[in-house]
Amino acid sequence: MSLTEKPTETPQRKAFYEKIDEKSLTPLWSVMSSIITPEPTSGCQAHCWNYEEAKAYLLEAGGLITAKEAERRVLILENPGLRGQSRITTSLYAGLQLVMPGEVAPAHRHSQSALRFVLDGDGAHTAVDGERTVMHYGDFVITPSGAWHDHGNRTDEPMIWLDGLDIPMISFFDASFAEGYPDDEQPISRKTGDSLARFGANLLPVDFEPRKKTSPIFNYPYERSRAALEQMRTQEEWDPCHGLKLRYVNPVDGGYAMPTIATFLQLLPAGFTTAAYRSTDATVFVAVEGSGRTTIDGKVFEWGPKDIFVAPSWKRIVHEPATDAVLFSYSDRAAQDRLGLWREDRGNH
Amino acid sequence: MSLTEKPTETPQRKAFYEKIDEKSLTPLWSVMSSIITPEPTSGCQAHCWNYEEAKAYLLEAGGLITAKEAERRVLILENPGLRGQSRITTSLYAGLQLVMPGEVAPAHRHSQSALRFVLDGDGAHTAVDGERTVMHYGDFVITPSGAWHDHGNRTDEPMIWLDGLDIPMISFFDASFAEGYPDDEQPISRKTGDSLARFGANLLPVDFEPRKKTSPIFNYPYERSRAALEQMRTQEEWDPCHGLKLRYVNPVDGGYAMPTIATFLQLLPAGFTTAAYRSTDATVFVAVEGSGRTTIDGKVFEWGPKDIFVAPSWKRIVHEPATDAVLFSYSDRAAQDRLGLWREDRGNH
Amino acid sequence: MSLTEKPTETPQRKAFYEKIDEKSLTPLWSVMSSIITPEPTSGCQAHCWNYEEAKAYLLEAGGLITAKEAERRVLILENPGLRGQSRITTSLYAGLQLVMPGEVAPAHRHSQSALRFVLDGDGAHTAVDGERTVMHYGDFVITPSGAWHDHGNRTDEPMIWLDGLDIPMISFFDASFAEGYPDDEQPISRKTGDSLARFGANLLPVDFEPRKKTSPIFNYPYERSRAALEQMRTQEEWDPCHGLKLRYVNPVDGGYAMPTIATFLQLLPAGFTTAAYRSTDATVFVAVEGSGRTTIDGKVFEWGPKDIFVAPSWKRIVHEPATDAVLFSYSDRAAQDRLGLWREDRGNH
Amino acid sequence: MSLTEKPTETPQRKAFYEKIDEKSLTPLWSVMSSIITPEPTSGCQAHCWNYEEAKAYLLEAGGLITAKEAERRVLILENPGLRGQSRITTSLYAGLQLVMPGEVAPAHRHSQSALRFVLDGDGAHTAVDGERTVMHYGDFVITPSGAWHDHGNRTDEPMIWLDGLDIPMISFFDASFAEGYPDDEQPISRKTGDSLARFGANLLPVDFEPRKKTSPIFNYPYERSRAALEQMRTQEEWDPCHGLKLRYVNPVDGGYAMPTIATFLQLLPAGFTTAAYRSTDATVFVAVEGSGRTTIDGKVFEWGPKDIFVAPSWKRIVHEPATDAVLFSYSDRAAQDRLGLWREDRGNH
Repeated sequence: MSLTEKPTETPQRKAFYEKIDEKSLTPLWSVMSSIITPEPTSGCQAHCWNYEEAKAYLLEAGGLITAKEAERRVLILENPGLRGQSRITTSLYAGLQLVMPGEVAPAHRHSQSALRFVLDGDGAHTAVDGERTVMHYGDFVITPSGAWHDHGNRTDEPMIWLDGLDIPMISFFDASFAEGYPDDEQPISRKTGDSLARFGANLLPVDFEPRKKTSPIFNYPYERSRAALEQMRTQEEWDPCHGLKLRYVNPVDGGYAMPTIATFLQLLPAGFTTAAYRSTDATVFVAVEGSGRTTIDGKVFEWGPKDIFVAPSWKRIVHEPATDAVLFSYSDRAAQDRLGLWREDRGNH
Repeated sequence: MSLTEKPTETPQRKAFYEKIDEKSLTPLWSVMSSIITPEPTSGCQAHCWNYEEAKAYLLEAGGLITAKEAERRVLILENPGLRGQSRITTSLYAGLQLVMPGEVAPAHRHSQSALRFVLDGDGAHTAVDGERTVMHYGDFVITPSGAWHDHGNRTDEPMIWLDGLDIPMISFFDASFAEGYPDDEQPISRKTGDSLARFGANLLPVDFEPRKKTSPIFNYPYERSRAALEQMRTQEEWDPCHGLKLRYVNPVDGGYAMPTIATFLQLLPAGFTTAAYRSTDATVFVAVEGSGRTTIDGKVFEWGPKDIFVAPSWKRIVHEPATDAVLFSYSDRAAQDRLGLWREDRGNH
Repeated sequence: MSLTEKPTETPQRKAFYEKIDEKSLTPLWSVMSSIITPEPTSGCQAHCWNYEEAKAYLLEAGGLITAKEAERRVLILENPGLRGQSRITTSLYAGLQLVMPGEVAPAHRHSQSALRFVLDGDGAHTAVDGERTVMHYGDFVITPSGAWHDHGNRTDEPMIWLDGLDIPMISFFDASFAEGYPDDEQPISRKTGDSLARFGANLLPVDFEPRKKTSPIFNYPYERSRAALEQMRTQEEWDPCHGLKLRYVNPVDGGYAMPTIATFLQLLPAGFTTAAYRSTDATVFVAVEGSGRTTIDGKVFEWGPKDIFVAPSWKRIVHEPATDAVLFSYSDRAAQDRLGLWREDRGNH
Repeated sequence: MSLTEKPTETPQRKAFYEKIDEKSLTPLWSVMSSIITPEPTSGCQAHCWNYEEAKAYLLEAGGLITAKEAERRVLILENPGLRGQSRITTSLYAGLQLVMPGEVAPAHRHSQSALRFVLDGDGAHTAVDGERTVMHYGDFVITPSGAWHDHGNRTDEPMIWLDGLDIPMISFFDASFAEGYPDDEQPISRKTGDSLARFGANLLPVDFEPRKKTSPIFNYPYERSRAALEQMRTQEEWDPCHGLKLRYVNPVDGGYAMPTIATFLQLLPAGFTTAAYRSTDATVFVAVEGSGRTTIDGKVFEWGPKDIFVAPSWKRIVHEPATDAVLFSYSDRAAQDRLGLWREDRGNH
């Protein structure tokens, strides 16, 4: 189809292009095939980060800069195909954050939505809108768009978690707002655990009116999510492409826990090989439990506990867990669904 | 706040950055202030395109390339601050399309949603999913995401309209799919006017189930929209920031007519000066009727009939119509609303 | 199944029933088969009212009582199977209202939602929330729940319309509130036609926030609705059960125009015999144009212009128009859909 | 207002009424004041049932009829003001069901939605759509509209629970469908606990599409709901009218757990006296824990554990718990909200 071809550039045409260029005009036909493509074609590449290696660098950074000076002491996981853009996919950001014993990552707020997935240490806290939550391995913690948040570590070991944010999306829509809080830590007005009790037990306050599109639950404990998978496992209903895959939900409307980022937790039993699957939401995976290998677009990645790997849009994914494995993942499917863009290919046609 | 400062780069730190660079890792603290900004800060600039000037170039292009060879004979209105990116705002595209008498812009379909706003000529047609609509001045025509569409001009004068698409958004989400139709024109299976009758009279087929997020009405006739404004005008209820501003609506759910692009039509009476207004959705304006001037971020733009101007995100806008004026406009507010990002400042605080 | 049988009443059981009766206790098993039935079984009967006959009585009533003394001069169309209950179906009310030249039906408001379908006269008005609409034959006018409304006739001929209300539903839910307005007529603050212009042209005010579940359009002109049917007719897509049937829509959300009552307009071409159809929403039909006969549960009803007939829940309906016919209809489908109760049988299984 | 007065019945008018009566016509003005009332006015009365007394009768019934012969061995709690109508409020039903050791309440399904609130015994089960749930004190169990369900008691003690159904509502809308299952018990295809794990942990299966309006969770364990109240209690945020009141939620959409019936659980600390409150949803209360007294429309009711009392629409309610108390309650608020009828008066105006 001519959508994929480019008209020849005659001297006459070239001259015309130059002439209109100064009027901020340019011919569609010379770029059309590169901006309206038959299939997704971004520079985003499949890649896997070895956690232990990254952790070593992160701890080294711990000696180079304080959480306070850095505002957030984070190493960005930058997609090899998108270097210099602070992105792990075209629309999302990922980083590994370190908070040392006694440190505080000072309070601020911004339009960007953030998820934290706990990988190392136990017992540090995140405060959101006046409530603190204590973080444990595998917990999925949200600091919502526009919410004051700060992190603190009063334990005696370093705390490390994965940060997932929609920074590129907010930049793309040119809608970034951010401000710092006068003090390092915000005042605490709610008891720890209040939000989970209030919103997490399939009950809601009788007259509750949500003010934001983000889930009022800001810590989805791993213990609870993992138990759900284990109980469901007994039913032996495996999805050929996903094994057993759950979506974190906003109890207020049943939608995604965050307006721009979709988050998932899935169980893959040892020896289970998934059917080739692709979708338009490039996805960041974290191996929470177990080890195995994943083939993305023909390229094989071996992963073990806490390793992080990314699959670009519309590239086929095959998981082959060597042991029982649990994967946490996040993508922009929440945004693509809302905008009517999301598409998948389960290989069954 | 330190969100806006950058930690100093000591030699030791620099060395560390270089070391981790090859592991696809990079420090957040050295870029944070540029990716999480206190306010929107894109390169998008305010600009105005003189229609008559652009039309002259477009007609010249008519002699340089056929609609068929070009697939679409369009001159892109490229934002001066975003040259080489085929964008008029960070997330949207705009172009002027010419279809000469007897020409056909061949049938194809793509994920990108497109709007056409008619500026010159009368009576050419656009076909969508087997139905043709005849285009008149000021008509707002939609070719929905995924729908086969082609354009034809059987009149004896050139036809020109403004194209508005979400091309940058689809590229950003890496979700572009496109294909050509085997023939230049798709077969016609529905009577002209059927969609407007079926969905446009505040009635819907008793068992209608929408299959897409785009309005089933694909031509909102200017005659009808303009009449609504004129009738409402007699009520003399003017919004200080907008005069009288209406949003085009999808009759199926009352939402925006398109999932990613919001479209508006507004009436500004002669001598009415709007209160300074800004919002996060950079907006493309078309002067459908009248003339006047608009100040965007302190910069003044004089405009007359059919001129097109763009206002970036979060820049204050003041309209001063010299005559009664009607403005058509489009922005990514539809997407920003769905994602919880949209914000406005009506200057009343 | 035993759901349909009743256990035998032994003397011992009878004695027990009497004993517990004074404690406001009663055995389920002796009533279960009559309250949880295999299929709908109400007393509602199919019936047809001859308009000319009813009109004669109505005009006679015009000489017996004034609109003001009556508050509303209406003859209730009472279902023969539900006499004394002021109902035309188990959940809905119907009446014929007469307003004589120079009369005013005084302003009041109530929880009950009301529709008016104009049958005789031309040019009387209904005022809702400060705006007047002029009523013509076939117009579907809404006086929403909680809205001040009054009717006036400044023409020189009697005005008659069908009233459709959810009176039985509001009584059932024990949620009736009503009050009179200090004056006969409410003050007028909006221009006639403002609502239709503002909300009826597939456009909505840019920042409009609906305050009620009822459509902001309070007059759906017959001229416009009828034209839609005529245009669609050329497409020749006939539904075997409905011919060409449209649902009146609330432009704000695409739902029914009223929260409790669904309204429809359908075209049946001469000689078209509909396939047997039944649904759980007992329906009131008005012959707006043409004549024919309708068989309901085996009983035949001949109807001509303006005649009104009712079909009970789950009784099969077959329409046989002798001429081109247009039927207006209303039912509680809006409520049943929201409550998940609605069911239909298109006879194709 | 004349809405409340009735025109005088002159002999002439009487004669007219009789004449039109045989045409199924009747004057609105002679009934208007009784069908469109200034405030709710049903026969529904406030009443309290002593649980121990009712239980004694229920056990006596256990000797009079088997669960199988009765289909369901239930004593209806019939509102004193609505005798013979099998209703506890105008729109809802309540009954106490007994299943003796070794008994089975045979499988059937119906349009009516049912809730079961466990009051006596521990360990009997309810099966819904192929899954069994084990019932404990205070559990809120749902058997959804249209779902096959049966109950069985394999423990060695009688099991008693409160049944709450929308029987009157389904009858009112004339939408009752019911059928028995060929066998006493339906086949079991899902593991016990699967639904709660799958849908109750703020996670949903990645591609889950709800097929009905009822929550896929069919047992909300009291242990979990009670713990939520206890945790929230530490926050000391008491609502003057409700104490601490939670709404059971459908995780799929955040709405009520059932389409027609709203369910709540609330904590009232010892000595807390609620502010007078009234709403249009007549409510059935169950004292799950503690004792106290409640004044409804000036009438005082003393209650202890497991006692059941009902408050009519729009009658003021004041709770005065003598001890810490937990109340479970249900009403038709779910339906009234969907229909736009619900109204409350918190006494603060």
